Formats: sequence, C-alpha cells, structure tokens
Amino acid sequence: MSPLYKLTYFATPGRAEAIRFLFSYAAVEFEDVRIAYEDWPALKNQTPFGFLPMLEHEGKKAHQSVAIMRYVAKQVKLAGNDDWEDLEIDATVDTLRDCSSKFHPLRLETDEEKKKALLEQLFKETVPYFMRRFEALVQKNNGYLALGRLTWADLYFVASIAAGVKQYTDIDIIKEYKTLAELRTKVLENPRIKKYLENQPKL
Amino acid sequence: MSPLYKLTYFATPGRAEAIRFLFSYAAVEFEDVRIAYEDWPALKNQTPFGFLPMLEHEGKKAHQSVAIMRYVAKQVKLAGNDDWEDLEIDATVDTLRDCSSKFHPLRLETDEEKKKALLEQLFKETVPYFMRRFEALVQKNNGYLALGRLTWADLYFVASIAAGVKQYTDIDIIKEYKTLAELRTKVLENPRIKKYLENQPKL
Repeated sequence: MSPLYKLTYFATPGRAEAIRFLFSYAAVEFEDVRIAYEDWPALKNQTPFGFLPMLEHEGKKAHQSVAIMRYVAKQVKLAGNDDWEDLEIDATVDTLRDCSSKFHPLRLETDEEKKKALLEQLFKETVPYFMRRFEALVQKNNGYLALGRLTWADLYFVASIAAGVKQYTDIDIIKEYKTLAELRTKVLENPRIKKYLENQPKL
Repeated sequence: MSPLYKLTYFATPGRAEAIRFLFSYAAVEFEDVRIAYEDWPALKNQTPFGFLPMLEHEGKKAHQSVAIMRYVAKQVKLAGNDDWEDLEIDATVDTLRDCSSKFHPLRLETDEEKKKALLEQLFKETVPYFMRRFEALVQKNNGYLALGRLTWADLYFVASIAAGVKQYTDIDIIKEYKTLAELRTKVLENPRIKKYLENQPKL
C-alpha cells in the first residue's frame, strides 16, 4: 500500500524539513517527493496557490508549510489536547517565525558593510531578546517549548530556526543558549529523526 | 458580570483589529483595552513574550494575534468543522500574511526613488499574483475565502490586509478585484461590524 500522505517540495530542507521531521518522529510513512527546480514550472499550476510545499492526502491538496504541519501534528497526536493548549503551541511557533523574519531584510541588502552592521545588530539585540525568552519557556516546560512535553513546536524549532538563519550566516544562533541546545540535541538524537537524516538523499 | 475575554493592545487597529472584528461579528462581549504608548514599558513584562496583543481568558494569558484569533474563532464557531477544514482556513490566512510580508522591505528603504521602484514592482507583480488567486478562491467558495461560508479567514482578510498595506501606500489594493471588494463590503456592512466601527474610540 502506498503511504497515506504525499509531501512535495524541492530537494532542500527549506520549508518542508519540519514536516518531514514530524512524519519521521511520529513514524508515519509519507511519500517524500523532492522535485528538481527544472520540473517546478510544469507543476506550479497543479498546486493550490503556486507554492510548495504541498501536501496530498485522501485525494485533497493543501499548501502552506506551517498550516500543513499543524494539520499533520493533530493526526499524529503531537498537538495540544484542547484549544488553549493548541493556542500555546501556535503562539510559540508564530514567535519562532517572527524571530526568523527579523533576518529577512538581509536578503535585500546588497551593500556588504550594511549587511554586516545589520547582522551585528541582530546578534546583539534580536537574538538575545528571543532566545532568552525561549530559554525561559523551555525551563518552565520540562525541557520543551510548550505543554511540558514534545509537540510539533519543538520539531519546528529544531528543523526551522537554525536552518532558516543559516541562509544568512554560519553563526549557530542556539549554541550559547544551553537549554535550547539541549532541546535540539534531544530531537536530533531521537532514533527516528536520526534515521531520517541518515537516509535522506544527499544534496 | 465582566466579559470572559480581555484583549489588550495599543489604540490602533494594527495586529488586534482582526480579533476585535471577530468578537464583534460573533457578538461576544470582550474587554477592549487600548493602552497608551507611554504605559507600555510598565506592562511589557506582564505579557507572555513582551508583545501585544495579549488575550486574557479564565486567568490565563496568551499572545500572538493570529494564534489568538484561531483560538477565539474555534470558541465562537467561525473555524472549520474538522481538521482539514481548519487546514484550508490556516493555509489561506498564512497566504494573506505572506502577501502582506512582501510589503515589509518598504519599511527599511530610506531612499525615496528605490521605495517608489519597489512599490511599483509590488503592484505590477506581487499584488496581481496574490489577488487573482484569492479572487479565484472566493469565486469557488460562494463569496468567501474558504469552506463556502464566512470564517475567521474573511475577517482577517478585511481587517488586516488593506490596513497592513495602508502603512506604506494609500493605494487600495483590493479595489480592482471585484470579488474581493464585494467580500469586503459584505463584512463591513454586517450590522455588528458596523456598530463596532462606529463605536470605537477615535484615534
């Protein structure tokens, strides 16, 4: 039998990696379709909005990585147990996204000196502001970002935030924050995540 | 009896307006706290992450506007009826957010000529790309963005997207897209939304 879920994205971690982590962690088989950039124009019009990743499930198609991840998390029981618990997870994930988005202006900056200044300011102000608060959350939540247990917020954090920032700099933004580094290690050393990372196609 | 929900934000539409629309549309009383900027430093440390808006409900506090809105929408039955329906709403809302975020680089651009060029490109490429696809969605969904009925995605759209873009330009980005303009009119002419807008404190 073919897997119940089909996830289509490019052959990079990007916006699909956290969803791949989620399927892997939950030990749910999924079709991990990785397309070449030259095949994208032909596929674009078959997606809901012209964007990837795309999830296909029971004959339906959906897009938007975080929305897909929230949906899958509910199916594999890595979401909240009630609406308020889901709110706690959602708020944390959106705050992680806010933190990543602070790095986006670097994309448009072509002046190397200005880029350097922007990056310095990010590491002096933005990163400590967010990371200290995320650390406090993890300390309060038994080593996880929310609800005192592993949820999709933790997988999103590990798969996305460091990877997202890595587009702009090689600095490991988590390293200095012990509690967060421990959470990352815990996720990356999970046997199913390890197996996923070892078996994924080389770039 | 005091309202069950307390929403704290600044005295502007900003990130709280869509939530205020939601409470108003659903005819759910809420404490609409609007603080002055000079009172913010004293309040900041009493919020979950140092950000507004903040929702207080049953002795608990939450932040992140879209996460709060999703939570409230579930309580007032303007969300999906199952997980896949929620995914459809969530994907639409995140695509609206993506569209707004394309305007963010304008914030950092100080050169007026470059700003003008950026804005021109946005209206030539980005706005038509998104708005045509949102139009197709609304045509498919009985005059709404998702599920063939009014959901929190529609309230988010009307309260946020035009307001968000208005920070940068006076151009009405919806006007040329008839189906979207009709959806906006439908929401703004709802008697409860009208009443909310008429009764809100003047800026």
